Amino acid sequence: MTGVKRTNEKNLMIFSGRAHPALAEEVAYQLETQVVPTDFRTFANSEIYVRFQESVRGSDAFVIQSHTAPINEWIMENLIMIDALKRASAKRITTVMPFYGYARQDKKHLGREPISARLMADLFKTAGADRLIAVDLHTEQISGFFDGPVDHLQAIPILSEYVYEKYHHHNLCVVSPDAGRIKVAEKWANRLGGTPLAFIHKTRDPHKANQSVANRVVGDVEGRMCILVDDMIDSGGTICQAADAIMEAGASGVVIVATHGILSDPAVERLKASVAREVVLTNTLPIPEEKRFDKLTELSIAPLIGDAIREVFEDGSVTSLFDHASERAH
Amino acid sequence: MTGVKRTNEKNLMIFSGRAHPALAEEVAYQLETQVVPTDFRTFANSEIYVRFQESVRGSDAFVIQSHTAPINEWIMENLIMIDALKRASAKRITTVMPFYGYARQDKKHLGREPISARLMADLFKTAGADRLIAVDLHTEQISGFFDGPVDHLQAIPILSEYVYEKYHHHNLCVVSPDAGRIKVAEKWANRLGGTPLAFIHKTRDPHKANQSVANRVVGDVEGRMCILVDDMIDSGGTICQAADAIMEAGASGVVIVATHGILSDPAVERLKASVAREVVLTNTLPIPEEKRFDKLTELSIAPLIGDAIREVFEDGSVTSLFDHASERAH
Amino acid sequence: MTGVKRTNEKNLMIFSGRAHPALAEEVAYQLETQVVPTDFRTFANSEIYVRFQESVRGSDAFVIQSHTAPINEWIMENLIMIDALKRASAKRITTVMPFYGYARQDKKHLGREPISARLMADLFKTAGADRLIAVDLHTEQISGFFDGPVDHLQAIPILSEYVYEKYHHHNLCVVSPDAGRIKVAEKWANRLGGTPLAFIHKTRDPHKANQSVANRVVGDVEGRMCILVDDMIDSGGTICQAADAIMEAGASGVVIVATHGILSDPAVERLKASVAREVVLTNTLPIPEEKRFDKLTELSIAPLIGDAIREVFEDGSVTSLFDHASERAH
Amino acid sequence: MTGVKRTNEKNLMIFSGRAHPALAEEVAYQLETQVVPTDFRTFANSEIYVRFQESVRGSDAFVIQSHTAPINEWIMENLIMIDALKRASAKRITTVMPFYGYARQDKKHLGREPISARLMADLFKTAGADRLIAVDLHTEQISGFFDGPVDHLQAIPILSEYVYEKYHHHNLCVVSPDAGRIKVAEKWANRLGGTPLAFIHKTRDPHKANQSVANRVVGDVEGRMCILVDDMIDSGGTICQAADAIMEAGASGVVIVATHGILSDPAVERLKASVAREVVLTNTLPIPEEKRFDKLTELSIAPLIGDAIREVFEDGSVTSLFDHASERAH
Amino acid sequence: MTGVKRTNEKNLMIFSGRAHPALAEEVAYQLETQVVPTDFRTFANSEIYVRFQESVRGSDAFVIQSHTAPINEWIMENLIMIDALKRASAKRITTVMPFYGYARQDKKHLGREPISARLMADLFKTAGADRLIAVDLHTEQISGFFDGPVDHLQAIPILSEYVYEKYHHHNLCVVSPDAGRIKVAEKWANRLGGTPLAFIHKTRDPHKANQSVANRVVGDVEGRMCILVDDMIDSGGTICQAADAIMEAGASGVVIVATHGILSDPAVERLKASVAREVVLTNTLPIPEEKRFDKLTELSIAPLIGDAIREVFEDGSVTSLFDHASERAH
Amino acid sequence: MTGVKRTNEKNLMIFSGRAHPALAEEVAYQLETQVVPTDFRTFANSEIYVRFQESVRGSDAFVIQSHTAPINEWIMENLIMIDALKRASAKRITTVMPFYGYARQDKKHLGREPISARLMADLFKTAGADRLIAVDLHTEQISGFFDGPVDHLQAIPILSEYVYEKYHHHNLCVVSPDAGRIKVAEKWANRLGGTPLAFIHKTRDPHKANQSVANRVVGDVEGRMCILVDDMIDSGGTICQAADAIMEAGASGVVIVATHGILSDPAVERLKASVAREVVLTNTLPIPEEKRFDKLTELSIAPLIGDAIREVFEDGSVTSLFDHASERAH
Repeated sequence: MTGVKRTNEKNLMIFSGRAHPALAEEVAYQLETQVVPTDFRTFANSEIYVRFQESVRGSDAFVIQSHTAPINEWIMENLIMIDALKRASAKRITTVMPFYGYARQDKKHLGREPISARLMADLFKTAGADRLIAVDLHTEQISGFFDGPVDHLQAIPILSEYVYEKYHHHNLCVVSPDAGRIKVAEKWANRLGGTPLAFIHKTRDPHKANQSVANRVVGDVEGRMCILVDDMIDSGGTICQAADAIMEAGASGVVIVATHGILSDPAVERLKASVAREVVLTNTLPIPEEKRFDKLTELSIAPLIGDAIREVFEDGSVTSLFDHASERAH
Repeated sequence: MTGVKRTNEKNLMIFSGRAHPALAEEVAYQLETQVVPTDFRTFANSEIYVRFQESVRGSDAFVIQSHTAPINEWIMENLIMIDALKRASAKRITTVMPFYGYARQDKKHLGREPISARLMADLFKTAGADRLIAVDLHTEQISGFFDGPVDHLQAIPILSEYVYEKYHHHNLCVVSPDAGRIKVAEKWANRLGGTPLAFIHKTRDPHKANQSVANRVVGDVEGRMCILVDDMIDSGGTICQAADAIMEAGASGVVIVATHGILSDPAVERLKASVAREVVLTNTLPIPEEKRFDKLTELSIAPLIGDAIREVFEDGSVTSLFDHASERAH
Repeated sequence: MTGVKRTNEKNLMIFSGRAHPALAEEVAYQLETQVVPTDFRTFANSEIYVRFQESVRGSDAFVIQSHTAPINEWIMENLIMIDALKRASAKRITTVMPFYGYARQDKKHLGREPISARLMADLFKTAGADRLIAVDLHTEQISGFFDGPVDHLQAIPILSEYVYEKYHHHNLCVVSPDAGRIKVAEKWANRLGGTPLAFIHKTRDPHKANQSVANRVVGDVEGRMCILVDDMIDSGGTICQAADAIMEAGASGVVIVATHGILSDPAVERLKASVAREVVLTNTLPIPEEKRFDKLTELSIAPLIGDAIREVFEDGSVTSLFDHASERAH
Repeated sequence: MTGVKRTNEKNLMIFSGRAHPALAEEVAYQLETQVVPTDFRTFANSEIYVRFQESVRGSDAFVIQSHTAPINEWIMENLIMIDALKRASAKRITTVMPFYGYARQDKKHLGREPISARLMADLFKTAGADRLIAVDLHTEQISGFFDGPVDHLQAIPILSEYVYEKYHHHNLCVVSPDAGRIKVAEKWANRLGGTPLAFIHKTRDPHKANQSVANRVVGDVEGRMCILVDDMIDSGGTICQAADAIMEAGASGVVIVATHGILSDPAVERLKASVAREVVLTNTLPIPEEKRFDKLTELSIAPLIGDAIREVFEDGSVTSLFDHASERAH
Repeated sequence: MTGVKRTNEKNLMIFSGRAHPALAEEVAYQLETQVVPTDFRTFANSEIYVRFQESVRGSDAFVIQSHTAPINEWIMENLIMIDALKRASAKRITTVMPFYGYARQDKKHLGREPISARLMADLFKTAGADRLIAVDLHTEQISGFFDGPVDHLQAIPILSEYVYEKYHHHNLCVVSPDAGRIKVAEKWANRLGGTPLAFIHKTRDPHKANQSVANRVVGDVEGRMCILVDDMIDSGGTICQAADAIMEAGASGVVIVATHGILSDPAVERLKASVAREVVLTNTLPIPEEKRFDKLTELSIAPLIGDAIREVFEDGSVTSLFDHASERAH
Repeated sequence: MTGVKRTNEKNLMIFSGRAHPALAEEVAYQLETQVVPTDFRTFANSEIYVRFQESVRGSDAFVIQSHTAPINEWIMENLIMIDALKRASAKRITTVMPFYGYARQDKKHLGREPISARLMADLFKTAGADRLIAVDLHTEQISGFFDGPVDHLQAIPILSEYVYEKYHHHNLCVVSPDAGRIKVAEKWANRLGGTPLAFIHKTRDPHKANQSVANRVVGDVEGRMCILVDDMIDSGGTICQAADAIMEAGASGVVIVATHGILSDPAVERLKASVAREVVLTNTLPIPEEKRFDKLTELSIAPLIGDAIREVFEDGSVTSLFDHASERAH
């Protein structure tokens, strides 16, 4: 037989855009490697340029970029990095999105709107992404927008373990800020050892047109330490009003927990001023120094992403991560 | 200049599979045409064969097939019809799905599951469908699964107009069977002139593992005629329990309203036996004679689909259908 | 150099739908493994649900599903399984079709017909199949319908070895039931050590319109044991008439041999009653207990499929299987 | 409403490569237009250059190129023309292949062969062809190789009308040169008013390895004028041997009829010397002056192609062409 | 025949992003219509939202967006608009790029770089653009990056007509700032009635490493009014040094002419301070008030784009625009 | 865990078409293997047939074919080989084009032209090529035409090393035959240790229409040995005129150097008769015996292609080849 035979090796390489390099470095550290050194430039007319300083040929490439503001800047950088990897013969390209940009535009509310969350999935596919790793997508259907495997990670093991450690001696209650997210709250209640549930019901007086919405707490929160859980905090209005409603309903305290801290203005002001005693976020999005405040706790998502990448690289099971984690919490 | 010039005409043609021919005929009648005569055969080994009896070249083809049981049979017939249209040079193929099969498999609940709702979108695209018209998709994100234009029709104008006519002199209340669908209930409340809202909250005693779920009514239904609205009725268990809970909470009556009457066994028995005074469905799915019962009201979706097809054919606006309808109800 | 290196392993996994699990288990046994445990459910409205019980990440997945009746059911299950494998990060997906559904719709006989055999190839590609293994396709051109590698296996080594062992002391003759399949009969004649050939010529009296077709044997079968070979037996009419014609032409006996036993009604009755002394089929399609009859011999296709999968997995040669097999027969 | 409205016109334009311009001109004449003037150049290193002299924007473009030798030259020219049309904004591009190159490579006979007929279909699709018109494809499955509509024309109305006019007073018999093509011969027998059928059976003495094949006539040709029909004549060996066999079997005469006259050397010598009294071909392939001989009759395929193009352009029915034609013959 | 026939109308609609609305309005005015009213929003976390206020169904849509800074912002807005048009059933979508972003990244200078200009072409195709209209692409090969028709417009008729009118009584000379663009300068020389040519040769003393580059004028500019032509002015360094070199070589004056005025800092300062007596640009990119200066002349590209859109809409010839224009200049 | 595990091996295989087998054999020799034995046939009607004599399953296949005349023949053979490899389950297919056919048709000079260089990239992708290796593409943008990784090799290390060895004791000057290729000449000047540069400026007297072009040498070549470098020599007219102009400008000698020796007639006559003292080419294209002449030096490109294939196969760095080479030259 003609030919040259050779054992096949695979090579894990971690890449990071400029949106949130600290997270990528932490993930690489978890995996006992470094982020691949990369040149970035933004030209005078704001075009982005990218070049990897090392050969990426044949690599199993994981590109970490979190879609923080300026979001279009970082999405485009992400796409350009993937294009460069594809043309430089990376063997497999996984785009790791700790926060998936445009996830809230996942359907048309009105005619003639885009479905930008689907568009993003297609743009990444076109640029050359073979796979996608994301954390706590706004709706789970978004996994179905990408034409390829999606590993959908959940921050709940990390967040709930922290909350459990710190608050399990309290009389707990898990509160959903919205009737539509009650299933997530149920998972939380299980993680925390079986707490009661409550949620905020937004009411509108139907007899008075255009009247503003009021928040009503459904479920018994009186005298309880309430864990108010959401997927993201953007400008913080909804969540702070929910916290107010909970305290008014007689809770003994409120802890706000969310995976993604977008923290658009005036989120920080609102959270600082809110009745919540603690705000727990992960670092899926970067929180700059000037946005940090006393009662903010930031937990690292890096171990979770690192574990997931290792499972993907070693053909293990990402699903199993959430089984183990589930045990860990108790 | 070389060449032969000619004014361009377009030709609307309506096709129907064997799943629900009565609906297609009604739609064609609305459009003042007929369903294109088509040969169907199911061979001894259950393979399906299709052939159109007229030339379809250059046509603007609308293929109406509702995904009722045996659902895989009718989906495959639908795909084969589209393949035949494509190869026979139809100019544009719109697949009209009054009920979109596999819509409930729109996300992974666990690892290693399919996302069959996305798969269906891709299969129809591959067979040759350029566009999709669907009625009340299980979740709106499914529109984003199809790589092309989707006209997502809502049965609410038809259903709410009927309910309004018949019940507006009652003291009404709109009830959602599930906290997650409360936004749909809000639309209904507006349509009915601004009624109060309620919903069913499924509770679980967290201290007792595996205990069954109880339905609790949130909102004030006492003494009211409750319009219990859902997108589909499959085996009817959830909706009938919800009706019970509403009556136990002191309602004066319950009317069950849903777009899609799947009516898998034992739905009919349950609905007949339920406390609901009326069950209102559309004919997006065929309801065979043996599944009809006294308190069932079936409204035709054909005028809505007919209007939508006309707008699509004439480059009008499908969005506007729902604006007009909205006005009509009041 | 940055990165984490690791030797690349590959992992063969066998999956089976519900159409013909016994065959898949036999193939897995050949390969010294088991079929991957999988959950299947058919919901009340006939939608199918699938989930693999083990991680399939990085696997070289072979999905075995034979397209028996209800054929659309099993094709859809097959597609859904492939979708689930793709989304669960299987590395390579080979769909193994012992019988390829809709293979007889491989061309248009009339305008406005589908080419369903091509459609099937495209549906499987879209769902995520990278490769295809099939046994004795109705026409060889179907290999060209799939956009990717196709390993086209032939049952002839298995069937001819059996026939040779049992009948080589007879005075043999290979008969084709149809002038168009005479090349297959030639292969058989070679396999059996160089026997004469004959075939059935269907004649029509051109002067009498709509007169029924008569079978005429071309070639000398007198006093010979005739091996009547075809690719499939569906309702069995043609093949039994051919057997009659052969006996009338003075043959000493007829053995019917075919790869695919579709056996749609009334095939079993016809075969039982036929002049053939033995009917030899493979188990590419399941033959339920109630369809078995005395003179039926069922040979297993599993060793062939097992060998082919091993060659594919180990980057060996599938072509060589048929060279070796060819030697074995003599 | 914003916008500028305008009636939509369509414009038929006929293009021709350099393989067989006379045929394209004849087709254009049928359609009362001219072939669009086009610049062609073959550069010193044999690269081909193409440019259309008129605007083709918005046109319904039909590109006629027959794949005669040097076949790769003309296929590449064909692809380049389509690329130029696509980039110049032709609205729809139909590639018209009177003879489809590489049609005989429609399956693998052995492992590691190409399926070039499928490759051709894909190359034309990639270059920009939306549709395909072909005449008498070598096997009908090739229609399924192209991912789009294929109008498969048959020369039989033209050929059989000529034969009927000239020979219907003879005692006719239709002969297929190969058992596999007997269905085509049946169509011919019907067209000629219901003649008997015969075919050539190639036999091999199985007891003598590598012995050459003998032709045996199956069916009664004695005293009859035999119409020997095939799809193509390449080097002419098979067909001339078949004619010999027919005459030896006692026929009163042989007329050879085929759609495609490839006429590779030494076809012309063989045909001239053969026992056939006439050889009837169409001009799907150009027959240069030096290849014409006395008993050759060349019928034009242009009216058929012209009719088909008109039906396609005017959204009529191509299928109907063969119904009408069928009537014409009697 | 079944069906509903109707004459086909087409409807031209002009859309504009927020990058350069004044240009789009001017183009719409040329076409005697208006830009379609559109809602734009930039959310708190910088995600963009778009919705068209009118039905766009069936329209021939032209989306005008010029890729000025912040360029990633406007490219993303452009993609989102196209996605919304596609999903709202626009019939044909042409993206009009007066300036094509990332055009200078059209090849790899080093390994592991992206080819962002190709990436952009693919992103627009994926979003749903069928066609592309661009003005003076940085290199003409970029037309080949887009998989579909590209109309590549040239500003030279507009620019050269202005220069001819104002300066033809001078003793002119056309100067290219770079040896590689000399063919463009030749076109200019022809447009201006046949002037001499010169260009700037950048020299480096090879014996002194890292020595800076010097500009040498090749060609005779002495005593001549020099028209220094380039495709774009970014930060203006190169072009101002070229102007200096020309004046040092004895020219009587320098007029700088370019299609695209990117004018990144410190372009305006450099141009103001330069020896050039006039700087002539088009408005393919917006030039804000604060970047305007006395000797700047801005010519509108809108008539050219309007003419091109009209030709595209009416199936005329864009090529012919440049033939006519060529005549106009003399 | 279910499944069969196995270490993954990869297998490099070299394939060659019939265009330039000597080069492929030399490359295979470099890699210590042989070209895979392959059957080729050209049928009577000029259709090409290809079959590999060994199993190629799972191989890392490199197909070497140089696009020499008859270029369409060899491109088609190349495509057919790739189709056969794809269908025979090669794992990865790299098409190696020492000379990329149709590279000069990389843009439209006029409306209604093709962009054949892009078409070729798409045809190879469609046939099944995953990657492309090319040598000295006519313009670097062509890398962006292929949708996948392209390794763009440069012959300059091989050519410049030879020239340096032989001529570095002369007083050298590098001359570009065209102002547009001056950057390549700069690279050469660096490679040769820092020589002066010159180029040929083609001038036209603008006052006399249609006057022929004259070559003017820009830069000081007097008394120097001039290395006149180009990418290809087709019919040789331009390069020989350039050599004349250089000698007339007082050079002491001219050496013509080019990567690709197309040598269309009358290139050999012109080069023989030219003032150049040596003509240095690589063997990217075959130079048949009858085209060789005394002062021709042919350097082998095989070591470079061999090195690149090794790097690709072993996941090394192709970029690094040109860094090393650069050092070697000095």
